[in-house]
Amino acid sequence: MPLLKPRKKTREISVGNVKIGGNAPVAVQSMITAFTEDSKAAIAQIKELSAAGCEIVRVAVPGMDAAHSIKKIKKEINIPLIADIHFDYKLAIASAEAGADGLRINPGNIGEKKKIKAVADCARDRGIPIRIGVNAGSLDKTIAEKMGATPQAMVKSGMNNIRLLEDLDFHNIKISLKASDVERTVEAYRLMSSKTDIPLHLGVTEAGGIYSGIAKSSIGMGMLLAEGIGDTMRVSLTRNPVEEVRAAWEILRALKIRKRGPELISCPTCGRCRIDLFTIAEQVEKALLTCSATIKVAVMGCIVNGPGEAKEADIGIAGGDGMGILFKKGKFIKKVKQDMLVDVLLNEIKTMTE
Amino acid sequence: MPLLKPRKKTREISVGNVKIGGNAPVAVQSMITAFTEDSKAAIAQIKELSAAGCEIVRVAVPGMDAAHSIKKIKKEINIPLIADIHFDYKLAIASAEAGADGLRINPGNIGEKKKIKAVADCARDRGIPIRIGVNAGSLDKTIAEKMGATPQAMVKSGMNNIRLLEDLDFHNIKISLKASDVERTVEAYRLMSSKTDIPLHLGVTEAGGIYSGIAKSSIGMGMLLAEGIGDTMRVSLTRNPVEEVRAAWEILRALKIRKRGPELISCPTCGRCRIDLFTIAEQVEKALLTCSATIKVAVMGCIVNGPGEAKEADIGIAGGDGMGILFKKGKFIKKVKQDMLVDVLLNEIKTMTE
Repeated sequence: MPLLKPRKKTREISVGNVKIGGNAPVAVQSMITAFTEDSKAAIAQIKELSAAGCEIVRVAVPGMDAAHSIKKIKKEINIPLIADIHFDYKLAIASAEAGADGLRINPGNIGEKKKIKAVADCARDRGIPIRIGVNAGSLDKTIAEKMGATPQAMVKSGMNNIRLLEDLDFHNIKISLKASDVERTVEAYRLMSSKTDIPLHLGVTEAGGIYSGIAKSSIGMGMLLAEGIGDTMRVSLTRNPVEEVRAAWEILRALKIRKRGPELISCPTCGRCRIDLFTIAEQVEKALLTCSATIKVAVMGCIVNGPGEAKEADIGIAGGDGMGILFKKGKFIKKVKQDMLVDVLLNEIKTMTE
Repeated sequence: MPLLKPRKKTREISVGNVKIGGNAPVAVQSMITAFTEDSKAAIAQIKELSAAGCEIVRVAVPGMDAAHSIKKIKKEINIPLIADIHFDYKLAIASAEAGADGLRINPGNIGEKKKIKAVADCARDRGIPIRIGVNAGSLDKTIAEKMGATPQAMVKSGMNNIRLLEDLDFHNIKISLKASDVERTVEAYRLMSSKTDIPLHLGVTEAGGIYSGIAKSSIGMGMLLAEGIGDTMRVSLTRNPVEEVRAAWEILRALKIRKRGPELISCPTCGRCRIDLFTIAEQVEKALLTCSATIKVAVMGCIVNGPGEAKEADIGIAGGDGMGILFKKGKFIKKVKQDMLVDVLLNEIKTMTE
């Protein structure tokens, strides 16, 4: 049984110049934590996220200031931007007019039909898609009371929201069905995938810190992606969103679906280890968070066996007593003082990849 | 389709007082990085790992000093200890005589039949199991040359090693089949699980740093555990092994297989967030790494909505401008100065859980 089942066929939509669904690669998304109304801070964070491999960025639009700020932001960034709106259809329209490449809003929460129609018309005019974002923690009251916050209820809520748009002949849609636990998340996406060809935005919500967040997201999205389900993804962590992007790429890489950025190889420490490998590996890992080159980097504990064991690495360091070495493809390049090892490695990578 | 398939039935073995396989819970293992011959350092690290939820600890035995040190170590620790040996049967026998609760050695690497027999006899006399540890990176040469480092080759190597012990009427065995990538690891375990009822020790080897390591381990072991495969597990990270243990528990928790330690809830930051939630959440997460109580802890960005949104949390903090609050089960307990919030929370948790 192969690890990956064939990808479930969905309809293709476009968020700016990024295609979602169909045969398009699974796109990596994240969301800024800077205030959208602070365009300078937002632009800086979006550039950092883009450098880390974020392909679509979402920004919160809690008020008109934020909606108007999108215009300034869009001028300075190179990836599509999605405006995240709750309830207020005027914010959705203002965001679209300011140049947002997509809207995240639940039509079921907008209110009167004519308001929903105004949003759909505006999105249609501009050719931008709407993401319906179902969240187990905030289901429509009538559904939640009748069915509980179950996967079935999540899908029902999603289908209701889809119908509101499709009744207006609006089909440029993607949908997410997030719960805070793996079980409901996986079941909801499986069920939705069996019912529709609308592209699916994967995510586990409120996933938490780095251990639980990466574990939950990896298991949940990993299972779904292995089953061929999912067209775009966001890992949610209560951390710098650059780390969300990194985690998303690690999930795609682990499943051999897509590849980006450096792969870090490091030996388990052993009795021959003569450097503080944990700290060095952590420093290197952190420094390479925003590196996009697909190189293999080795951090090894011993100059005797390190270079040979890591000969598949494009570049690596190995520690000694006071002196370490730099190597490439298993071959010795030069001796380096221990306390300069990390700097020398990072500089060398910079030279190789720029 | 339920998330978890029924657990595959394996034969039950015992490592000290910890049962593996059969109906026993999936046991969490780790390995010390301290030198085994430095008994003081080894004991300190094992105690730290045990506090973090490590249920079986492995120590490297590269020489006789290390084997003899096991006697001292065993007197001071409360969890079973497995001696990790390469090639030298004398080290295996010395480790068993020093009180090791299990051996990790590949009989195929020991050499002459009578040496293998000596190890098996010694293990049988003491009632301790042997783990066969197949690693895709170090397969028997004849198999690797004929078959490549494939899952099929890994299973073949495993079966050969099993036969060497079973021919000596030794059946107190468990086996691991680790590769550095998810695909081969998952395929090897699936195949082995279809061929034998020997308990399986799960792991992805050289998984790397925190992002790739947790992602690979979560996807690989998560898929297997969800399929009912796996009786004990180790997450490998080039990090402090306490973090391996934490990651293993997060995998088990995410699949609702077992539960241990605090669950951290924290809101995604938003426009109302008045504290540096990332740093605070990270501090709390780190401080609770070795906490064993199964409490829910919330770290929220806003005193208005935080307590209500996190009312399922046993205890939590929410940040304000300069002043934050402590709450329990959604109810206000007291105001706390911002810079004391984390300390007050951790102290309160200590009081609640001791």
